[in-house]
Amino acid sequence: MSNPTAAILVIGDEILSGRTRDANAHHLAGELAAKGIDLKEVRVVSDDTAAIVAAVNALRERYDHLFTSGGIGPTHDDITADAVAVAFGLPLGVREDARDILARHYARMGTDLNEARLRMARIPEGAVLIDNPISAAPGFSMANVHVMAGVPNIFQAMVASLLPRLTGGEPLLSQTLRIERGEGAIAKPLADLAQEFGDLSFGSYPFVQNGAYGTNIVVRGTDATRIDAAMARLAVIAAQ
Amino acid sequence: MSNPTAAILVIGDEILSGRTRDANAHHLAGELAAKGIDLKEVRVVSDDTAAIVAAVNALRERYDHLFTSGGIGPTHDDITADAVAVAFGLPLGVREDARDILARHYARMGTDLNEARLRMARIPEGAVLIDNPISAAPGFSMANVHVMAGVPNIFQAMVASLLPRLTGGEPLLSQTLRIERGEGAIAKPLADLAQEFGDLSFGSYPFVQNGAYGTNIVVRGTDATRIDAAMARLAVIAAQ
Repeated sequence: MSNPTAAILVIGDEILSGRTRDANAHHLAGELAAKGIDLKEVRVVSDDTAAIVAAVNALRERYDHLFTSGGIGPTHDDITADAVAVAFGLPLGVREDARDILARHYARMGTDLNEARLRMARIPEGAVLIDNPISAAPGFSMANVHVMAGVPNIFQAMVASLLPRLTGGEPLLSQTLRIERGEGAIAKPLADLAQEFGDLSFGSYPFVQNGAYGTNIVVRGTDATRIDAAMARLAVIAAQ
Repeated sequence: MSNPTAAILVIGDEILSGRTRDANAHHLAGELAAKGIDLKEVRVVSDDTAAIVAAVNALRERYDHLFTSGGIGPTHDDITADAVAVAFGLPLGVREDARDILARHYARMGTDLNEARLRMARIPEGAVLIDNPISAAPGFSMANVHVMAGVPNIFQAMVASLLPRLTGGEPLLSQTLRIERGEGAIAKPLADLAQEFGDLSFGSYPFVQNGAYGTNIVVRGTDATRIDAAMARLAVIAAQ
C-alpha cells in the first residue's frame, strides 16, 4: 500500500512580502518524511479569505492530509479559522471546550479573557482540538485539514501533539554521496543508474567549493537494502 | 494603476523531503516587494512533469508573472524546461545561441560540452535568455514565465539579470513597531486602526521574549505619508 499524501498551506503576508522566511514548512517536511507521509506540495498565500478558501479546497481534495500554518491568533488579520469554516460550508462559533481551555490559561496568568482572545475559541463543530502546550489556544483538525499556529515554536509543539494520531506509512529514507565532480561529468551514468533503480529517486545537487565543482547525490526510497545497493554502485561511478 | 502580480514556483524533491530549506522564494519575495511587483503565491512541487505542468499553467494564467526555481541543470532530474515546453505546447530543442554560450564557457574551462551539458541549451523557440554570470547555462523567459536555476547564488544572479527588464509598480513600503504587550491586549484598537486605514495592511506578529509576551506590528503600503500617519497612531496605542 502506498503512503498517505499531504500538502502544507502557509498563510501570511509576512512571508510573501519578504519580511519573514518561513520555517514551518521545512520543519514539518522533515517530520512527515520520518512518519511515512509523502509531502507533495507546499503553498504560501496571503491573509486573504478568498485565497485561503480556494487553496484549502483544492488541497484537501487532492491529498490525504492538509496542514495549515498561521492566522489563528486574536487579531483582525487572523482569519484562517473563518476561511476553513467557509471552505467546509460550516458555521464558526465559540466552542465551550476551547473556551474552557482559554479561561483556565488566562486565569492562571491573571489576564482577562477579552473578546479578542475569545476569537481563538471559535472552532468548527465536529473538529478535533490540537493541543497547544505553549500558549493554550488550540489548533484543530477538521476532517483531513489540520489547522495550526504560525509562530514556529507553537507550530512545532502542535505538530508534536498531532502527528501521533495520524496513520503513517513507510518512512522516507535517504543517503547522500558527495562527489568531487560537476553534475555534467556524471550525468550519463547517474541517469542510467536511476533508470535501473526505478523504485528509488536520485536527486543531484551541484555545489561550488573553493572554486571547484562538486555534486551531492541523494538517493531516496523506503527500502534500506535497495538504497545500500544503489550507494555501492554510486561509489563506483564516483571513483571513475 | 495597480501593481503587477506574481507567483513563485519552486521545483524540487529536496525541499519537500525536508533535506533542504528553500532560500530562493524568500530572496525573490524581498526583491519583488522593492520592485513594486506584488507576490501573491508561492508553490513548491516535486520533480514530476505532470505536477510542474499543472502548476505552471495554473499560475501563469492567474498572475502577471511566474518565476520558477530549480530543475534546469544537466542531470536526469532536471525536467523544468521540458515541463514548461509541454505547458506551452511548444517543442524543445537545442538553440544555437544557448549552445554558443555553453561552448564558449566549457572551452574556457577546458571541459567537454558533452550530451548531458548540452541539455542545458534546450530552450523553447521565442523564449528570451536570462543571463547566468556564474556558471553560464542560461535561464529563459517564455512569455510571462521566467525559468531560473535552483542553486541559490545562481538563482540570485539570474534574478539580478532579469528584474531590470520587467516593469514594476509602486514599491511595497513597511514600518514595524515593537509593542511590549501580547496580541490579545491590543487586538481591539489595532482592528479599529486597520479599518480606518483601509489602504494599508496591518500585520500582527506575536513573540515571547524572556517569558514576556510582545507583538511586532508591521504596517505595509505604497504611500509613505499614510504609513507615517498610521505609525503615529500606533504609538499612542502602544503607550496606553
